[in-house]
Amino acid sequence: SDNEPDTEDVAGYDFRGEFDLDDLLDSYATTGFQATHLAEGIEISKQMQDDDATIYLTCTSNIISSGLREVVASLIREGHIDVLITTSGSLTEDVIKSARPFKMGEWDADEAELRERGINRLGNIYVPSDRYVWLEQYLYDFFDDFFADEQIRTPTAFARELGERLDDEDSVLKQAADHDVSVYCPALTDAEVGNFLYYYKQANDVDIGIEILDDYDKLIEQGLLADTTGLIAVGDGVPKHHAIMTNLFRGGADYVVYISTGMEGDGSLSGAPPDEAVSWGKIKQQETNYTQIEAEATLVFPLLAAAAFHNRDD
Amino acid sequence: SDNEPDTEDVAGYDFRGEFDLDDLLDSYATTGFQATHLAEGIEISKQMQDDDATIYLTCTSNIISSGLREVVASLIREGHIDVLITTSGSLTEDVIKSARPFKMGEWDADEAELRERGINRLGNIYVPSDRYVWLEQYLYDFFDDFFADEQIRTPTAFARELGERLDDEDSVLKQAADHDVSVYCPALTDAEVGNFLYYYKQANDVDIGIEILDDYDKLIEQGLLADTTGLIAVGDGVPKHHAIMTNLFRGGADYVVYISTGMEGDGSLSGAPPDEAVSWGKIKQQETNYTQIEAEATLVFPLLAAAAFHNRDD
Amino acid sequence: SDNEPDTEDVAGYDFRGEFDLDDLLDSYATTGFQATHLAEGIEISKQMQDDDATIYLTCTSNIISSGLREVVASLIREGHIDVLITTSGSLTEDVIKSARPFKMGEWDADEAELRERGINRLGNIYVPSDRYVWLEQYLYDFFDDFFADEQIRTPTAFARELGERLDDEDSVLKQAADHDVSVYCPALTDAEVGNFLYYYKQANDVDIGIEILDDYDKLIEQGLLADTTGLIAVGDGVPKHHAIMTNLFRGGADYVVYISTGMEGDGSLSGAPPDEAVSWGKIKQQETNYTQIEAEATLVFPLLAAAAFHNRDD
Amino acid sequence: SDNEPDTEDVAGYDFRGEFDLDDLLDSYATTGFQATHLAEGIEISKQMQDDDATIYLTCTSNIISSGLREVVASLIREGHIDVLITTSGSLTEDVIKSARPFKMGEWDADEAELRERGINRLGNIYVPSDRYVWLEQYLYDFFDDFFADEQIRTPTAFARELGERLDDEDSVLKQAADHDVSVYCPALTDAEVGNFLYYYKQANDVDIGIEILDDYDKLIEQGLLADTTGLIAVGDGVPKHHAIMTNLFRGGADYVVYISTGMEGDGSLSGAPPDEAVSWGKIKQQETNYTQIEAEATLVFPLLAAAAFHNRDD
Ligand SMILES: NC(=O)c1ccc[n+]([C@@H]2O[C@H](COP(=O)([O-])OP(=O)(O)OC[C@H]3O[C@@H](n4cnc5c(N)ncnc54)[C@H](O)[C@@H]3O)[C@@H](O)[C@H]2O)c1
Ligand SMILES: NC(=O)c1ccc[n+]([C@@H]2O[C@H](COP(=O)([O-])OP(=O)(O)OC[C@H]3O[C@@H](n4cnc5c(N)ncnc54)[C@H](O)[C@@H]3O)[C@@H](O)[C@H]2O)c1
Repeated sequence: SDNEPDTEDVAGYDFRGEFDLDDLLDSYATTGFQATHLAEGIEISKQMQDDDATIYLTCTSNIISSGLREVVASLIREGHIDVLITTSGSLTEDVIKSARPFKMGEWDADEAELRERGINRLGNIYVPSDRYVWLEQYLYDFFDDFFADEQIRTPTAFARELGERLDDEDSVLKQAADHDVSVYCPALTDAEVGNFLYYYKQANDVDIGIEILDDYDKLIEQGLLADTTGLIAVGDGVPKHHAIMTNLFRGGADYVVYISTGMEGDGSLSGAPPDEAVSWGKIKQQETNYTQIEAEATLVFPLLAAAAFHNRDD
Repeated sequence: SDNEPDTEDVAGYDFRGEFDLDDLLDSYATTGFQATHLAEGIEISKQMQDDDATIYLTCTSNIISSGLREVVASLIREGHIDVLITTSGSLTEDVIKSARPFKMGEWDADEAELRERGINRLGNIYVPSDRYVWLEQYLYDFFDDFFADEQIRTPTAFARELGERLDDEDSVLKQAADHDVSVYCPALTDAEVGNFLYYYKQANDVDIGIEILDDYDKLIEQGLLADTTGLIAVGDGVPKHHAIMTNLFRGGADYVVYISTGMEGDGSLSGAPPDEAVSWGKIKQQETNYTQIEAEATLVFPLLAAAAFHNRDD
Repeated sequence: SDNEPDTEDVAGYDFRGEFDLDDLLDSYATTGFQATHLAEGIEISKQMQDDDATIYLTCTSNIISSGLREVVASLIREGHIDVLITTSGSLTEDVIKSARPFKMGEWDADEAELRERGINRLGNIYVPSDRYVWLEQYLYDFFDDFFADEQIRTPTAFARELGERLDDEDSVLKQAADHDVSVYCPALTDAEVGNFLYYYKQANDVDIGIEILDDYDKLIEQGLLADTTGLIAVGDGVPKHHAIMTNLFRGGADYVVYISTGMEGDGSLSGAPPDEAVSWGKIKQQETNYTQIEAEATLVFPLLAAAAFHNRDD
Repeated sequence: SDNEPDTEDVAGYDFRGEFDLDDLLDSYATTGFQATHLAEGIEISKQMQDDDATIYLTCTSNIISSGLREVVASLIREGHIDVLITTSGSLTEDVIKSARPFKMGEWDADEAELRERGINRLGNIYVPSDRYVWLEQYLYDFFDDFFADEQIRTPTAFARELGERLDDEDSVLKQAADHDVSVYCPALTDAEVGNFLYYYKQANDVDIGIEILDDYDKLIEQGLLADTTGLIAVGDGVPKHHAIMTNLFRGGADYVVYISTGMEGDGSLSGAPPDEAVSWGKIKQQETNYTQIEAEATLVFPLLAAAAFHNRDD
């Protein structure tokens, strides 16, 4: 009939022949619901690369707590990422992991018992307290150098100089430093690095400080200089907003993929789907340049990294 | 130290070598958060098979609306599923799809316009109304036969005889009929099949009926006869509860994988994690026999089907 | 400017004067996010009454597990509800509660320990197993009468005759029986009442049955006879769909309020906002006749009951 | 029996007598699910006051976008709050609202059309662009003074001096300034105030900056000086973590109420329930000193403010 939609048939993967992951992910386009969004996310991520976009990756700290740290590091190592924006826990934990592993744990652990044993819990991940003892000394040594010449420093300088010293190819900070990727982190104090900055400042009675406006200028200007920008937001919060807000200055991001567990109905930035950012001019309005995958990132980000970046055979 | 947890290191996939999906999904075990649950779900699903468990697959209707229909059909076709429990929309839509496709659509469509065009929306899937016109006639013919000898019939008989007539290898009902898999559907009236049963009954002034206690007995007894049972619940609601409730009679299901978007904090059956069912004796309590993957099913169920059923190389 | 929206100012409650709940809930209209939806839900519920709508209340079983049972019973007792649709756990638990209380509990209880103590957990609610021992005998006595004359009965008859015997003014089934409100429950077997029907049938070797098409006809016709219909859906699943599906026969429900924790992005019926039902003709399309409050029901349903039904002073 | 739980009966509100909101909220304690958590949140908030705790209120920016701004302002005005931690959108929008209202809007607006009309959308709230035109000039005047003597300033100084100039009793910043409540906002650049700082710096070629370590020290010390601390976290993200992280220095917060839509299963800080913070020592472990209300804040925060702070009659 005239009213037959002019779109593809809904159809799932055909398991009959030889299994192929790329075919499976292609079939996601016509599987419906969030599978369709993952297929769109892969497609948009490929377009970013084909268009030589300046690619922003934003992530929350728990991404680095999890095994996605290695996935983020791999994307930077392969030269796919131009700007990284994150929160302060990412810096803390990337440094720790470069020397000491995090351990698998249980969601429903007995908290009081964990506390007794000196184990900190992050979802189903455990971080024994000795990691922070190690970190303290590591950072004090670093601070001695970092603040030696200038007392007021920026988060990007902090991440850069920290990354330069690390000796772990799976470190996000090291890869970022090696590949000249700036790591933005406006709320730098809000994690253990902040705590150790506090102690260090007290202990040494120095007037050190962290200045954040300079980085903001730099981030805006990096966007202004780009012909095309693409954003992959793994998780929400300040990092995601930092990316879209600074893209406003250039009339919006060109390509956007959100991976999010946020709830639209709470009116939060974190839950706002990409089209809300269109009204603000933070994302450009085109037909197929943005999508949101409603999913916990560990399930889908490695697939997106594999299909859109690492194993492109198209 | 003594307090070092005796568990695996958190570590993500290493993208350095040749990409391999099985290795990727293995790495999910140590990636944390929901990835770990997907890895557990795959492992538990393999154990079900290794233990020759009677495997229950339960799914909500929208699973059949989506491209997961073909995945469910493939599992039955390959002989992996012994019991299917679902809701009534699944029957309606599997029949339609055996003759006419559903179409990809948009979440934020203009509803009034769709209504005008005769297009029904299911998330980002469209079902043009002519499908239901076709279905009406198809079902009336079927009803003539189905109620010819007996006027009071059961949902399992309904699904069986419907499936026997279908001529589509991707049909869940056909595969279930071909492989002697009973399809349970207690609330059979709650979809278009119910509507057409109503019209048919009015039009023909017949005293037909759907009786559901007989099926319940059959389902309980199928469980009682099984040495071992495994449950894969794709979505929640009545089908999932039907499976665990009838497993109570045998002291609980042995292996359980939930794929769910339910919210624990609303106290619903749909949101209740597997351990709640342990207190009721609906799931057996062991160390590693159940898990819940908090995810929209289209993202993860094809991966679980691939890794745990179709492409086992271990 | 010309572009100034022609809507109300966002403004929250003014705590300066004497506190008044009705004023607070009025202020929710301009508070934004879900508060605005609660205010809309109250307004729409008032319109249902002013329009003498046939009011459908649908609820999931956990609503009856919780203290919302008393709220549902109060609305029926005051004559506000015309049709009740629910799932089978509601019937089971309303009967138990008419004789024995449920107890407050803990979400993160030790399940194995609970099992040992014979305590079943429902979120943060405990149901000691002796309740089911009591229920068994109670139902067997009831079944003797219920199936005495006819062996094939309907869920509405089941709920009616059960309610007639109860002696608790806070019982939903009793109030429904007393006020001639039909209680629909298509998947009647899917709870302990189903289990006891199974045992009873085995023990007495009787050919009893539950027939559900008759009820569906009745529900459709109740809708067809109504000039105007209103629906308050407390939770989702089969009950909500049963209401909107049968309203399709009359061209859609006139007024609709959903209270839901469902997720739109999973393509489920439970998560589908009311506007999806508009495309199907299950809800009528007008400007302000439907809303969805994204909330766990215990938080908001008592407020809606108070403001829209019990304490109307307008 | 011996196994009867030693807890209260589940029981909902009794609508029979005169309606009373305090009684209703008391009944929430035995209503189950999230209602119980709201009742706990009210109880804990009363204990904070009875214990003369230093009370931290944290909120996300959208709280200030919504009508909860007036509720937050009322709590500060009445002297209930000692520390406020928020994100930068809160500062931006509180200033705008002191001069120009936000307007009620629609979630599913046509974004391209809104963009054309110069309307920015925040959930179901509209912010016409002329607000930002006004803000720009307002802030430039403010910056002239603010940076006149010192070029490197802190977020708390920013919020304080901004608040001192406002002339709106419903302004959060004004009430905070008037009542000597420090407003912490580490990621100050991440909103329009950041944008205008950038433009101002470019235009005037000044070497202004925002330093954040000093505030962090101040926040830690405010916690160390407190005998007892209480935290009400309205929404999640950086503000909530900032509060619990700095409470670590004093061995954990004594009383904690979270109002959150976060998802535990994504391993995020935002979704982590209070007990996760116990393992880190960010919250003290006692029986009943913390709770989390899983709800969108506009629905429940005004009720908590009313029952625990404004209308205490106990
Ligand atoms: N109006 C705005 O939202 C706005 C405006 C300008 C800038 N920004 C910036 O965006 C960034 C991110 O925003 P954010 O950190 O304020 O928080 P957010 O909006 O990202 O929310 C963080 C988390 O808080 C919880 N939450 C949010 N709203 C809630 C509610 N109504 N009820 C219950 N829980 C809720 C959710 O878990 C959410 O994921 C910040 O830097 C902020 O300054 C926001
Ligand atoms: N107490 C019980 O929950 C119980 C007991 C025995 C049997 N059962 C059976 O389990 C099966 C499934 O239960 P169901 O269909 O009643 O519903 P459900 O518990 O599966 O919930 C269905 C949906 O309703 C919504 N919802 C549930 N609780 C909510 C709340 N508090 N606030 C807002 N939204 C909410 C959610 O979207 C949820 O996914 C039924 O057959 C039922 O008879 C349940």
